[in-house]
Amino acid sequence: MRPQEIIERKRDGNSLSAEEIASFIAGVTTGAWADYQISALVMAMFLRGLNKQETHLVTRAMLESGTVMDLSDVDAPKADKHSTGGVGDKTSLIIAPLAAACGLAVPMISGRGLGHTGGTLDKLEAIDGFNVRLSFAEFKRVLKKCGYAMAGQTKQIAPADRKLYALRDATATVPYIPLIVASIMSKKLAEGLDALVLDVKTGSGAFIADYEQTIKLARELTGTGRSFNVKTRAVITDMSQPLGKWVGNAVEVYECIKIMRGESEPAMQATTDLTIDLTAQMLVLTKLERTFDAAKARCERALGSGEALEKFRQNVVLQGGDAAVCDDPESLINKRLKKVPVTAVSDGYVRAIDTHCVGQCISNIGGGRIKAEDSVDHAVGYSCSVKLGDRVSRGDELGVIYARTKTAADSINEVLQSAYTIGPKKPETTELIRTTV
Amino acid sequence: MRPQEIIERKRDGNSLSAEEIASFIAGVTTGAWADYQISALVMAMFLRGLNKQETHLVTRAMLESGTVMDLSDVDAPKADKHSTGGVGDKTSLIIAPLAAACGLAVPMISGRGLGHTGGTLDKLEAIDGFNVRLSFAEFKRVLKKCGYAMAGQTKQIAPADRKLYALRDATATVPYIPLIVASIMSKKLAEGLDALVLDVKTGSGAFIADYEQTIKLARELTGTGRSFNVKTRAVITDMSQPLGKWVGNAVEVYECIKIMRGESEPAMQATTDLTIDLTAQMLVLTKLERTFDAAKARCERALGSGEALEKFRQNVVLQGGDAAVCDDPESLINKRLKKVPVTAVSDGYVRAIDTHCVGQCISNIGGGRIKAEDSVDHAVGYSCSVKLGDRVSRGDELGVIYARTKTAADSINEVLQSAYTIGPKKPETTELIRTTV
Repeated sequence: MRPQEIIERKRDGNSLSAEEIASFIAGVTTGAWADYQISALVMAMFLRGLNKQETHLVTRAMLESGTVMDLSDVDAPKADKHSTGGVGDKTSLIIAPLAAACGLAVPMISGRGLGHTGGTLDKLEAIDGFNVRLSFAEFKRVLKKCGYAMAGQTKQIAPADRKLYALRDATATVPYIPLIVASIMSKKLAEGLDALVLDVKTGSGAFIADYEQTIKLARELTGTGRSFNVKTRAVITDMSQPLGKWVGNAVEVYECIKIMRGESEPAMQATTDLTIDLTAQMLVLTKLERTFDAAKARCERALGSGEALEKFRQNVVLQGGDAAVCDDPESLINKRLKKVPVTAVSDGYVRAIDTHCVGQCISNIGGGRIKAEDSVDHAVGYSCSVKLGDRVSRGDELGVIYARTKTAADSINEVLQSAYTIGPKKPETTELIRTTV
Repeated sequence: MRPQEIIERKRDGNSLSAEEIASFIAGVTTGAWADYQISALVMAMFLRGLNKQETHLVTRAMLESGTVMDLSDVDAPKADKHSTGGVGDKTSLIIAPLAAACGLAVPMISGRGLGHTGGTLDKLEAIDGFNVRLSFAEFKRVLKKCGYAMAGQTKQIAPADRKLYALRDATATVPYIPLIVASIMSKKLAEGLDALVLDVKTGSGAFIADYEQTIKLARELTGTGRSFNVKTRAVITDMSQPLGKWVGNAVEVYECIKIMRGESEPAMQATTDLTIDLTAQMLVLTKLERTFDAAKARCERALGSGEALEKFRQNVVLQGGDAAVCDDPESLINKRLKKVPVTAVSDGYVRAIDTHCVGQCISNIGGGRIKAEDSVDHAVGYSCSVKLGDRVSRGDELGVIYARTKTAADSINEVLQSAYTIGPKKPETTELIRTTV
């Protein structure tokens, strides 16, 4: 089948057959399709649409472009959590050890930060020596020993997705739900899971800010997961303010260890709540618990007893990291950073936070990536002093920038200040967990 | 301006600004845009559309990506004819010398055959020694000496179009009227014309078979020409059967010389009629004649008197060709070719001819190109013995294949036979010249 004929069929609004989609994805993987033919078809898909069946077929073809992990000799039920990305979204760091402590095996393939969102791999690398580049054999060994492993996507996992994503990024075809679904699910399905919980973010810091679109994305994600016989549930969660207290890399690891040590602070409560909710969903989906309430109670016990922290410590050691951070989390906050407060410009209630802007500011001072090939400064970050609905007076501290230099902090201070909308009326509170799909 | 931002604007259905289009075409010319970005934008243009202003801007930017000929020191009015391509469409070979004989300067940049259609350059190269690769200086010298010159597109003329066309061909984005218009007009406007007559073909052998779409193409072509202050007229002409008697390269030159020698045959009449009509349009547009009837009369005189043939002879000599063909056109019909008749399968009237199929058959035995890089066999061809509306009996000759071998002729004989629809009812006749836009 010639690429032109397949492009022409989608250009004219036809549904593509299994054979046509397989031929396309094989062409992406082998290079038989030229990049300009791939991008022309992707634009035609974006504008003409992909139906559910086509989304399933693209996902399957991308999944099968690489290796699916064989974890059949791992006895525990295999489950994972995936987030669509947010600001201060650090739950993976607790969910994996917590789920492992509750009896699950969690083979977690994660990504890096890009734009305004952070990435789990960058956060882990804030721990001295922590190695996220594991071969499959190493990954499996760690998983078997401590119940979870965390690594980056290898070349063997969904290589077609890697190629396709790079082209989409360069041709303004990223924000199209069926292609987002195929990209996420082809990687997650390669983990050979029994169950998958999706944390689909909504609000000003989410990849898709609009609520209706978020629901649509969640439905397509769960529908696709289920079409591969993986128990899938999506939790729509609020990203209209940074999650928890800290935004950054080392500072987010700090927050997670504080929570696992039972040394949480009020500003960190949302992190704990969301972590427990998502982990409990994993326990219910895999039938380790019968009811959601029982699952939550089990999670709370495993977190409170220090079992989660012990799993975390075990994993850090197995993946080459310095586990001293578990006993001295304060060492993750670099003492040489300049601390510069961001202050309120007026009296009133914090009515809105442009969370995308907050994430982008921390990226801009080195905490994230503008381009995929940028390196990351693990130390810098931001600490949220107030949350949505809090009452502030002019000059009160809204948050604190932790930057390398005063100049770097000053470069984002005014922008951060303007990210906060302060008004006389107390805003309606938005639930952290909006709904489940 | 980043390519992604421009692609995104068209993806979302916006009109592109002059600056955005200039940035795109500059990116095509310089290579600043990657091929995959170009093809993504072209697909978005195809599906979201380009309005008249955008078509003008793309045409202008492509025109300005190269050189516009400076023919200000040529005294005569400068006019050209361009055809959208057909089967047996050989009028350029007579129009150029005839228009020159009537006092016009014709700087004709032509193309090569591709798929089912022939190309003027291939036909000219059927004359021993004829050189279509002229530098601009040579082109101008020939034009000044004999009133016309015929050459291929040089690298200096609309280089963006050359690049864009190759990508469109590989990504199923050729058949979109605004891009066809920009491609044709950017090259024709580079000739520095006062007037342009467009022969827009309709029917089974045309690039666009549908009549309404042909009218739309004609309107956009003339509108764009006029937006550049070039007097432009489009003539919609019938391509529901091969034009005139012969289809091929050398054999079409033969037909043209026979007509210019006053040795026409009834089957060649349509070639003569269309030639005179189109040339007369050029004379009226450039105001060399006041009325169309006077212009036609002048063309008939210049053709009948042998003046057109003399211009042709002069040009062949100037472009390095062997002018002996003017005195011995029979030498253009290769004596070693196998002549194999195609015969009628039943009694009745010739009701339809799949003209695309006829052109493709002659291409298939070497007379044209399947791919742009193929070479052409100038000798082979097809002679039409009957025309639409003719009455035939079973076994009558419909045409004669002129092939290198009996095997080659046999390979297309049945297909050619089935290209003719023969039925009991006499069909309604279609006018050669349908309308003028």
